[in-house]
Amino acid sequence: MVSTTYQVQGMTCGHCVNAVSTELGAIEGVSDVQVDLATGQVTVTSDQPLSGDAVRAAVDEAGYELVGV
Amino acid sequence: MVSTTYQVQGMTCGHCVNAVSTELGAIEGVSDVQVDLATGQVTVTSDQPLSGDAVRAAVDEAGYELVGV
Repeated sequence: MVSTTYQVQGMTCGHCVNAVSTELGAIEGVSDVQVDLATGQVTVTSDQPLSGDAVRAAVDEAGYELVGV
Repeated sequence: MVSTTYQVQGMTCGHCVNAVSTELGAIEGVSDVQVDLATGQVTVTSDQPLSGDAVRAAVDEAGYELVGV
């Protein structure tokens, strides 16, 4: 298991958290997503390391922006 | 047709707008809901005047607060 914490910009409410969690959770191999709305930190747990592109695409799909990767 | 503008507190994003629009739109007789996210102003158009209680209940159900009514 690998857990990686990303910084996501633009989340403002619980709906945003749900949108990001749903998209990231749909990446193959992801078993858990934890979002801290206050800080924008998103921790993704997966059975293999994820590509930054896959994570970025999922965050984009949810309507937000991955920063610092 | 009657259009009334209400003030709703707590909406921060498009998901919030959708949630409020959906709940208000489900009130019987409502034909249109326009939400201004920046100001929190929500204009509801209906065939008959709506009770403040019905509007408040719908906004509460969406997870936000009707103010000034």
